[in-house]
Amino acid sequence: MKKIAILTSGGDAPGMNACIRAIVLTAARFDIEVIGYAHGYNGLLNQEYASLRPRDVHNIIQRGGTILRSARCDAFKSENAAQLAAQHLNTLGIEALLVIGGDGSFRGALHLSQFWQGQVIGIPGTIDNDIVGSDATIGYYTAIETALESIDKVRDTADAHERVFVVEVMGRHAGFIGLHAAVASSADYVVVPELIKDTKTELNAILSQLDEIKRRRGHCSYVIVISENLWAGGATELATILHKETQLECRPVILGHVQRGGSPVSQDRLLATKLGAYAVEEAIAGKNRIMVGEINQQPVSNELASAWTNTKSLDGYLVKVQTDFFNLSKQP
Amino acid sequence: MKKIAILTSGGDAPGMNACIRAIVLTAARFDIEVIGYAHGYNGLLNQEYASLRPRDVHNIIQRGGTILRSARCDAFKSENAAQLAAQHLNTLGIEALLVIGGDGSFRGALHLSQFWQGQVIGIPGTIDNDIVGSDATIGYYTAIETALESIDKVRDTADAHERVFVVEVMGRHAGFIGLHAAVASSADYVVVPELIKDTKTELNAILSQLDEIKRRRGHCSYVIVISENLWAGGATELATILHKETQLECRPVILGHVQRGGSPVSQDRLLATKLGAYAVEEAIAGKNRIMVGEINQQPVSNELASAWTNTKSLDGYLVKVQTDFFNLSKQP
Amino acid sequence: MKKIAILTSGGDAPGMNACIRAIVLTAARFDIEVIGYAHGYNGLLNQEYASLRPRDVHNIIQRGGTILRSARCDAFKSENAAQLAAQHLNTLGIEALLVIGGDGSFRGALHLSQFWQGQVIGIPGTIDNDIVGSDATIGYYTAIETALESIDKVRDTADAHERVFVVEVMGRHAGFIGLHAAVASSADYVVVPELIKDTKTELNAILSQLDEIKRRRGHCSYVIVISENLWAGGATELATILHKETQLECRPVILGHVQRGGSPVSQDRLLATKLGAYAVEEAIAGKNRIMVGEINQQPVSNELASAWTNTKSLDGYLVKVQTDFFNLSKQP
Amino acid sequence: MKKIAILTSGGDAPGMNACIRAIVLTAARFDIEVIGYAHGYNGLLNQEYASLRPRDVHNIIQRGGTILRSARCDAFKSENAAQLAAQHLNTLGIEALLVIGGDGSFRGALHLSQFWQGQVIGIPGTIDNDIVGSDATIGYYTAIETALESIDKVRDTADAHERVFVVEVMGRHAGFIGLHAAVASSADYVVVPELIKDTKTELNAILSQLDEIKRRRGHCSYVIVISENLWAGGATELATILHKETQLECRPVILGHVQRGGSPVSQDRLLATKLGAYAVEEAIAGKNRIMVGEINQQPVSNELASAWTNTKSLDGYLVKVQTDFFNLSKQP
Repeated sequence: MKKIAILTSGGDAPGMNACIRAIVLTAARFDIEVIGYAHGYNGLLNQEYASLRPRDVHNIIQRGGTILRSARCDAFKSENAAQLAAQHLNTLGIEALLVIGGDGSFRGALHLSQFWQGQVIGIPGTIDNDIVGSDATIGYYTAIETALESIDKVRDTADAHERVFVVEVMGRHAGFIGLHAAVASSADYVVVPELIKDTKTELNAILSQLDEIKRRRGHCSYVIVISENLWAGGATELATILHKETQLECRPVILGHVQRGGSPVSQDRLLATKLGAYAVEEAIAGKNRIMVGEINQQPVSNELASAWTNTKSLDGYLVKVQTDFFNLSKQP
Repeated sequence: MKKIAILTSGGDAPGMNACIRAIVLTAARFDIEVIGYAHGYNGLLNQEYASLRPRDVHNIIQRGGTILRSARCDAFKSENAAQLAAQHLNTLGIEALLVIGGDGSFRGALHLSQFWQGQVIGIPGTIDNDIVGSDATIGYYTAIETALESIDKVRDTADAHERVFVVEVMGRHAGFIGLHAAVASSADYVVVPELIKDTKTELNAILSQLDEIKRRRGHCSYVIVISENLWAGGATELATILHKETQLECRPVILGHVQRGGSPVSQDRLLATKLGAYAVEEAIAGKNRIMVGEINQQPVSNELASAWTNTKSLDGYLVKVQTDFFNLSKQP
Repeated sequence: MKKIAILTSGGDAPGMNACIRAIVLTAARFDIEVIGYAHGYNGLLNQEYASLRPRDVHNIIQRGGTILRSARCDAFKSENAAQLAAQHLNTLGIEALLVIGGDGSFRGALHLSQFWQGQVIGIPGTIDNDIVGSDATIGYYTAIETALESIDKVRDTADAHERVFVVEVMGRHAGFIGLHAAVASSADYVVVPELIKDTKTELNAILSQLDEIKRRRGHCSYVIVISENLWAGGATELATILHKETQLECRPVILGHVQRGGSPVSQDRLLATKLGAYAVEEAIAGKNRIMVGEINQQPVSNELASAWTNTKSLDGYLVKVQTDFFNLSKQP
Repeated sequence: MKKIAILTSGGDAPGMNACIRAIVLTAARFDIEVIGYAHGYNGLLNQEYASLRPRDVHNIIQRGGTILRSARCDAFKSENAAQLAAQHLNTLGIEALLVIGGDGSFRGALHLSQFWQGQVIGIPGTIDNDIVGSDATIGYYTAIETALESIDKVRDTADAHERVFVVEVMGRHAGFIGLHAAVASSADYVVVPELIKDTKTELNAILSQLDEIKRRRGHCSYVIVISENLWAGGATELATILHKETQLECRPVILGHVQRGGSPVSQDRLLATKLGAYAVEEAIAGKNRIMVGEINQQPVSNELASAWTNTKSLDGYLVKVQTDFFNLSKQP
């Protein structure tokens, strides 16, 4: 193997740079040249690329974002685009394309693969952790930590003023960030896609607990963690409803894109480093249409398509603990 | 002097606990008993209080929020309330009341003072820094730092995706947090109450710069910092307008109450410690209706009313630098 | 089950408070009273204890250290001490004792168990992660993060001055902190107990790489991570030797006890919460002489003695990656 | 003015990059070219330099270290070296040299100035804050914060184990970091150059307080902050002595070079930005042999030599508060 290419696609995630670094260093060991495409699949279409040598990835392991830039690329869904990309890859003599991103990015890789003979390998990089085939995804640990630090701060004010806070976190299709940040911050209630019943049921559960707490203590410091896009009007609307029903001061906090950035925490750097190195080794081994991942602390490969055909479950014991603690605080 | 009381009022601010600690330790040196009222002026009306000894303030210097709780108290504006509070203070034998809070809290103290013979002393504790008579207010440094950390993270994604971000920070009447966080994070544009012309002028300035950057570089990573309540619809509406006008991806980020919490940074702990100690010394010296502060690194006292009769100005040189850098980046 | 007791023993670890909280909340669900002993086994001997109710563990999930205090207790190794402790436990009607700590603490529990009919259950809490039966131990994730943050800062100066830094981290018998912090910080070389050959061999490897880098680049920014107690004279001595041999500026940094403290990161809070809840459930299920842990994201129990009879291995793939990267940078 | 040069010299300090950025952006406004010399005065001798344009300083405001590298340069003290440097500066057409560093770096600039007609301007960049003519120096605020975060963590373990910790911080000739970090962390005792009597007196003060605390409470959690190079054998030796005398567990923590690194806090970024911009304006105004600084929130200039001919005093009120609190805790 002489030449491989990488790109980062979809939402950026802390640790993508650590992964790029690991790919470049591992490739260098085998004298493989690495081409980095800019702006995700756009760079593949526009031929926006540069060679990446070890010196180019010095001192990037700790940086958020991605030095290759990222973007979504709707144009890439067409047959023409994939054929054009295949042509460009062949012209450059690329033997394998490594794609760091989420399931949308992997679909793009598989689409390309129908028109290109080279190998495509996916590396799961997304803060949402909604990819089957790896216990965690690059960026996920940092996103939890960022959400947690913010909720810790909100709790200071919640306690000082005895207020209700509704904190909206990322993860529109998956509750990993929401559940983990909620338990780690000892939030009182959590609403995530996997656990939500209907909004009426959730609202009643919250209201009955708020009433209970007010009755017992005379006041109420209460934090709700909710995933984005679960409630019409989001955290702002939920806070408004809760205020109307309880007369308690209720404030929304929307963490938003802050959760995507920042220097990656150690767990993301380590995962990114291992997956980057392993992806190159699998490329050399001739693997195609796979996604690399880590399961039970072992590097593994799976069919790329399996990343989205199955749905990853929340940690069952963590769900149980959060539910038990919630029920406990409802007790008289 | 035998007995003083303290309360924290209005929005909580990081460093309030450090200030409470300094008051208690300084009072202990002079064998003065300290009473802490809970929930701001409400505790004064409801007689919700406890004695604070040195052991009660061990290990609180680093905690956000306030162990005394805080609250706004509209009821306190009446003459009856102030007279009731005066009565309660006299019954307990309180000689001086120390109020940690913002200008609303100080107005309450002055109102009380019309009906009470004891001394009232204000200590400026608010993240907004909008109090004349002290170069900085307790909590202000931490709020800038929290805003800065968030904007640093947002910039990672702004750079990775070449997007426009509109970051809304606290400070509805004062641009201290906005200006300082903007310069420290190298934000491209800043909109704060002291500097805003009309929204149309601001919008045109931003749009013309975005056009310029797009024209020169083909893409655009751009961060705007804006104080809350300055724009109808806030950061969300501004992001929508910018997208409509430029077709660039524009995202709002609303930092909200995260800025009030967190362990205070060193500058807030030091200021809080000095002002707490000085307030007790001034109480012993018989001062009344004053606010303590720090000007040019010296503890000072001023008439309490002067805290809000004058308006504190932004750092003129900082405004100049931000304006110069902005104009520079508009150059071809 | 009516009454259980807990204690924290040995070196403190971030997350111990989160674990205490989870135990108390879970016990409350089953109407089990919880007694907390202070200062580890000393409290058991001196009858220093207090009841722990849910309100006592409010707002402690985020605090470093342990509200129960910790200590080593050599006196407890005697038969007399264990018999006295058994007596005290029986007098109070304790049915199970939960011990949060490392292998020394678990040996104490097993020793007690020879003289006491109640159940003993270990919960792995140590920054060293050197406990078989759980993929990670409480406090381990935070210790890596703290070490990493420091090494990131040291690298700034290493790069600015092109100096060699020798950073000493904790883990005298286990290289988990050292290896993970080294890879996550892209350290150039790592010396940990599991991987060290003789010091002469290690020294030669470092020196030959330093020579190589100096020859190629003319200067050298280089970071070595080394576990404490591996080198006679520690990081200070190694830095002195390296300076003598290479004439490069070499500085030691000894992170020390900073690594034990701090607010636990999310992974430690989650692990602590799950293990605390699970330990109570296992107690109710009548289990004795076990350690609870988490393996492959599932809560599990193992015989207490197995915690130290086997040795936990480093992550093999991580060792390989670090070695490969090191060999790479030696290449011309 | 057409062309200026900058270099960073001496120990690196967080915020140096923010200052370089401000210089480059301000110069660009006036169409002045900026040359950056590498490795301090060494680069001036070896002609190691590069042009710095606005795009070169994008996204560096938040980075620790210095992109220009830094170094001490003993060779520069000779007349020959200064003459050679003057020649090189003239060849390149440099009209002013801006030096970011401490007093050693400023002496170098003044030495050069004897042999060169161009203007020399100093910008105070050192974590030690030991420069007269500016209330603070670039890097100082970050160093306090880093020390504080570490001491906060050490206190967790001090409290958990009731141990004595001796924390050694930087600042061999000036106690600014030591005093401010000590007060901000509520350390029990502080030893800094400006306040130390003889070591025997200090030791007795500490021992008598430890005895007192042990007598009253039965145990002792105690933190001492000490500046480096004040005690023969440093924190390690002091901890050993204290253990010998009291039988308490006493541990040294040596923060070392960690204090030089890290992303600058907002106060350092703001100071660096203002001083960098002001230095260019003063250069344009024809000023020579000056140091720029900020006094009472106003940018100012002073004679360069005055930076070291006078000694900056510690904050008197802060010294008083720390002393009062210390005396208080000695009370029965």
